[in-house]
Amino acid sequence: MPTMADVARKADVSIMTVSRVINNTGYVKAATRQRVLQAMQEVGYEPKSAAGPLVQTSTLVLVVPDITNPFFTFIARGMEDVARKHGFRMLLANTDESLEKEREYMQMCLDYRIAGVLIVPVGDPSVANLRLLEQHHIPFVLIDRDVEGIDTDLVKGDMRPTSTQLVEHLIELGHRRIAAVVGPLHNAASRERLDGYKDALTRHGIPIRDDMIFQASMTRDMDVSFVEALFSAAKPPTAMFVSNMFQYAHIVRALHHLGIRVPDDVSIVSFGNTDDLASVDSILTAAVQPTYNFGSLGAQLLLERIDGVRKMSTRIVLNSEIVFRASTAPPRP
Amino acid sequence: MPTMADVARKADVSIMTVSRVINNTGYVKAATRQRVLQAMQEVGYEPKSAAGPLVQTSTLVLVVPDITNPFFTFIARGMEDVARKHGFRMLLANTDESLEKEREYMQMCLDYRIAGVLIVPVGDPSVANLRLLEQHHIPFVLIDRDVEGIDTDLVKGDMRPTSTQLVEHLIELGHRRIAAVVGPLHNAASRERLDGYKDALTRHGIPIRDDMIFQASMTRDMDVSFVEALFSAAKPPTAMFVSNMFQYAHIVRALHHLGIRVPDDVSIVSFGNTDDLASVDSILTAAVQPTYNFGSLGAQLLLERIDGVRKMSTRIVLNSEIVFRASTAPPRP
Repeated sequence: MPTMADVARKADVSIMTVSRVINNTGYVKAATRQRVLQAMQEVGYEPKSAAGPLVQTSTLVLVVPDITNPFFTFIARGMEDVARKHGFRMLLANTDESLEKEREYMQMCLDYRIAGVLIVPVGDPSVANLRLLEQHHIPFVLIDRDVEGIDTDLVKGDMRPTSTQLVEHLIELGHRRIAAVVGPLHNAASRERLDGYKDALTRHGIPIRDDMIFQASMTRDMDVSFVEALFSAAKPPTAMFVSNMFQYAHIVRALHHLGIRVPDDVSIVSFGNTDDLASVDSILTAAVQPTYNFGSLGAQLLLERIDGVRKMSTRIVLNSEIVFRASTAPPRP
Repeated sequence: MPTMADVARKADVSIMTVSRVINNTGYVKAATRQRVLQAMQEVGYEPKSAAGPLVQTSTLVLVVPDITNPFFTFIARGMEDVARKHGFRMLLANTDESLEKEREYMQMCLDYRIAGVLIVPVGDPSVANLRLLEQHHIPFVLIDRDVEGIDTDLVKGDMRPTSTQLVEHLIELGHRRIAAVVGPLHNAASRERLDGYKDALTRHGIPIRDDMIFQASMTRDMDVSFVEALFSAAKPPTAMFVSNMFQYAHIVRALHHLGIRVPDDVSIVSFGNTDDLASVDSILTAAVQPTYNFGSLGAQLLLERIDGVRKMSTRIVLNSEIVFRASTAPPRP
């Protein structure tokens, strides 16, 4: 079945222009409109009724759980570069890790006849929200977080082996009491980080202790009260594995209040932002994920779906890179 | 004239629900729909025809020039908190400092019948794009950057006096050869920074030298080749006043390559991000603007316009706070 993309190619205009002609929104020159209508006839494209099933528009939406986290806005950058090359506009929506907001934005994608969605879902409970897109045949690609029960395209990082590598770096420096701080476990990426941490300990014969594993929010409002309890214990950890920049920043601040120094008293490793500029004077040893490519490759997959050229789901897992800095050192004798 | 907000209050539903009923988009329970229709009659609300003038929807849009800059995503956070309290959803669009993209997103706001727009404009040449909103009676509020010839609500920082304060801090430490790096001068906020820099020099009887003033992009792709030339001069500056975190990061990196240390060889002050977490281990002496409030107050002004309760333009100028850190020290004797 011919698509809007075919019409655009034939008429030598952008998909956005084809959309404007079909949906009668926005100004299109009379001559261009004529060319588009003729191209529609030539390729045999039949727009669906606006009242009935959805009519494609030339807008893509990226749904992220935390707009203030540069990790996610870099995904936007990558997505936008690809989207624009193909004549699509892009909008960003923020769910704040809330299933209710996520559902509202899914509804909005239906209301606005969005062509396709890239989404970093809240987690496994997002399945009901994603079904809404499925039911209305709006193509979507999962980014960063897998969702149980959803079979669709996915682009994410290699969380588990990278977590193992980060923790093994601490073990190689001589650390044995290593605490882990992970995000909510309804989020597959948090589970993968925890599994990677456990893999490292197991591989080196270090017992896994529940009192060294903490769950915390990954947003800027996280509660770090556990840090004080952890470091008042008889045998506090000599190293910590944390999940993102917000957790790192909050924990460093809490440690500072307790008079505990990094790396002298405790070493820290974390997943970091892609933003090499923001971290220009950071001391953090961090795993950096290619989030720009999460967006650019995700957009590629999405456009293939919109064009209907691929039916099978594709899963892309991208490697991380570990940047070694001053936050890690051998434990004190 | 009664507004959608009046209908929503009367029917005890969100504006979003009223919008869905009016525009017949999205699912609304039959009983709720009935209540909304009755409330419309009771308050005397008459929806405009969808084919003719624009019908209000319950979505606001924030248009920013650089989605990867946390300065702007914090505006989004503040805007969203207020928008949601009033039953509005929010979408974000990125212009990449491009007038053409800005125009496209203005067009999109018309296509999607957006209720109102908060915009950080590219600069003075944005005037034609903003006229498009004016012509279609879509209320908008300018954020961060004033635009010559546009009379509307505005929320921004006190760039000029804060720039003066930053430069005076350097002068008080003993610096006399102070370079300034500002953004493009079609952007009012860049002009205000430059004026503030000049004010400080003038106040202390230091001559203003054109070879100490540089214009550069404020995005992450900025060109810092001028740094090498500047520091190969016979009398290089002992201090620099730069405009944002990206400029700071690029310049610090360029200095590092030249073997020039901060603050030993050169002191730096800058406007910083609001993100106290991202800067947890930064050494930068920076002016911090309350960008969350740019968004929350901007949204307040916008909602008043949408509700039609205020006709006069309001201009809000918010104070910055300077955080003193290790990037500034007296010049070497």
